[in-house]
Amino acid sequence: MTLPTSMNALILKEDGFGNTRTGSAIETLEPYLDYGILPVPKPGPGEVLIRVRMASVNPSDLYFIKGEYGQPRVKGAAAGFEGVGDVIDGNGLFARYLKGKRVAFAGAVNGSGAWAEYVVVQAATCVPVKKAMRDEDAAGHVVNPVTAWTMFDIVKQSKSKSFVFTAAFSQLGKLMAGLARDNGYAMIAIIRKQSQEAHLRELGAKHVLVQSDPDFDTKLAALMKSEKPRVLLDAVANQVSADIFSAMPARARWVVYGKLDTEAPALNEPGQLIFMNKKIEGFWLVNWFKRASMLEKLMTIRAVQNRFISGAWSTEVVATVKLEDAMRELPEALKLGDGKVMIKP
Amino acid sequence: MTLPTSMNALILKEDGFGNTRTGSAIETLEPYLDYGILPVPKPGPGEVLIRVRMASVNPSDLYFIKGEYGQPRVKGAAAGFEGVGDVIDGNGLFARYLKGKRVAFAGAVNGSGAWAEYVVVQAATCVPVKKAMRDEDAAGHVVNPVTAWTMFDIVKQSKSKSFVFTAAFSQLGKLMAGLARDNGYAMIAIIRKQSQEAHLRELGAKHVLVQSDPDFDTKLAALMKSEKPRVLLDAVANQVSADIFSAMPARARWVVYGKLDTEAPALNEPGQLIFMNKKIEGFWLVNWFKRASMLEKLMTIRAVQNRFISGAWSTEVVATVKLEDAMRELPEALKLGDGKVMIKP
Repeated sequence: MTLPTSMNALILKEDGFGNTRTGSAIETLEPYLDYGILPVPKPGPGEVLIRVRMASVNPSDLYFIKGEYGQPRVKGAAAGFEGVGDVIDGNGLFARYLKGKRVAFAGAVNGSGAWAEYVVVQAATCVPVKKAMRDEDAAGHVVNPVTAWTMFDIVKQSKSKSFVFTAAFSQLGKLMAGLARDNGYAMIAIIRKQSQEAHLRELGAKHVLVQSDPDFDTKLAALMKSEKPRVLLDAVANQVSADIFSAMPARARWVVYGKLDTEAPALNEPGQLIFMNKKIEGFWLVNWFKRASMLEKLMTIRAVQNRFISGAWSTEVVATVKLEDAMRELPEALKLGDGKVMIKP
Repeated sequence: MTLPTSMNALILKEDGFGNTRTGSAIETLEPYLDYGILPVPKPGPGEVLIRVRMASVNPSDLYFIKGEYGQPRVKGAAAGFEGVGDVIDGNGLFARYLKGKRVAFAGAVNGSGAWAEYVVVQAATCVPVKKAMRDEDAAGHVVNPVTAWTMFDIVKQSKSKSFVFTAAFSQLGKLMAGLARDNGYAMIAIIRKQSQEAHLRELGAKHVLVQSDPDFDTKLAALMKSEKPRVLLDAVANQVSADIFSAMPARARWVVYGKLDTEAPALNEPGQLIFMNKKIEGFWLVNWFKRASMLEKLMTIRAVQNRFISGAWSTEVVATVKLEDAMRELPEALKLGDGKVMIKP
């Protein structure tokens, strides 16, 4: 097979960070992306070239293309953090081992991205995918499922059999609900819409609180007493989150991993940091990948894949959009509901 | 010597917590304390009876008697957390070893307090005081100096040779300035009054920033770049503190150990928790005492005593008030300036 020299891709139009703080909502991709042609990237030492089968669309991708994520954009580079594909070339021992294999990946090397026909990533960050796993599950099985798995470790370390989870109807929230139930933990899921409650309970959340419920505070206070959760996993970071944290018992940790709301939360009870030994911190999967040992990563990935293969987890895909149609169809697909949207070259 | 059965003490008038949040400022003691007579407390197992030589007045004492500290008050008990005195009785092996010795102490057992003629404390929390140490230095050498020493360990662990300290003209701030200079660390001291700058530099602070300085933000930003501090030691917990934390580089820790301001700080940059790996936490000496090994405590106390004996640290006493005059004179003495006030039975 001869490799083409150019390929189609969704290409970033801007450099660095944007001035907006509008979150993951997207009406149109025009200000941020072009559908165009790029040279097929070349793998450097320790890197592999992958022909993309399917790429996932995560909230972090949408933040990123708008310049609202924690990493600067590179104008002219392909977008897209995560996907699944076949390794067709590579440099180095592990890269050669991967050649011909189907792998999942997250985080491409500079100038490369998953929303393209080809992508270059570090061989060390590739995860060989078991045969029995669907492309749909593999394409999104690093960012969200590994995040869920590692966050659940934070919950286990807290030595409480309960935890609080905001924006719980997200992909991540749904994955956490299953993990919680299957391990005997009580997830206290915070959601916005009453209509989301039944499905989340079905997936495994023991308690579901709707923010707009007039008895929200009372119900929350009762759960804090009965379940004594010590971890708040939070993608919102607004005043509701801060107030939940204040209501939590001693030694509670507020773990922020996203900022879905633009409101700045006020800390009304800083004395709790001192006398109740509470802590506020962040979680970013990139840091976990930097810190965790290779064994820890392999075991985590294996556990994640087995959950998908056994059916304990399943990726709810609401739409698969062709790369060439993404400029037009992606914004609409993202409005279809709370499932996942995929891009297929 | 026959022990009297009753003694004079400053006695708490209220139980539990107060409704105010006015901080350590005190106009009058009448609402909180009575000067009266209590039975001389009896030491239980593992406890010692101490004849108090001198007790110190810390901000935490003032918060406590107003019901604004993290521990509930006990009506009818003597106030006062810290002091120095002679062990005259005790139960248990270590208690008998301490008999006749001059000891420093912090934290009395229930119903007992340092603002009295006699106090009962756990033998394990007593610190024998070296002969060469003055009562003035010994009476206040647990809470503030041990706090300074253990906080300095937090700075050392941060792997930056610099740190930020708010309300830096406090006793604690002055102690930290000396520790910083003597160990080659750059303390960035935040103060309110220009007049405090010279003395703080003399004591060892490398950089002093006055909050009201119109160039405060610019100067702070420049120091963040040149010194790269990773720890903010903060007794104020207001918006200024939150903004300093936002200006700090990656991996910064905001360590709150007091709440001098009633303003609730807003977190304007929660994304920094995620992408810059910043953390917010509290520090309470009580937790250090619970967590640290006996060896760690002994070494810390020895190091602290040696700094006082060598003159590297010295307690600046502005007034010594007699126990019987404290109701009238203490509020006035506390206004004398930034030095320490002592109570003498």
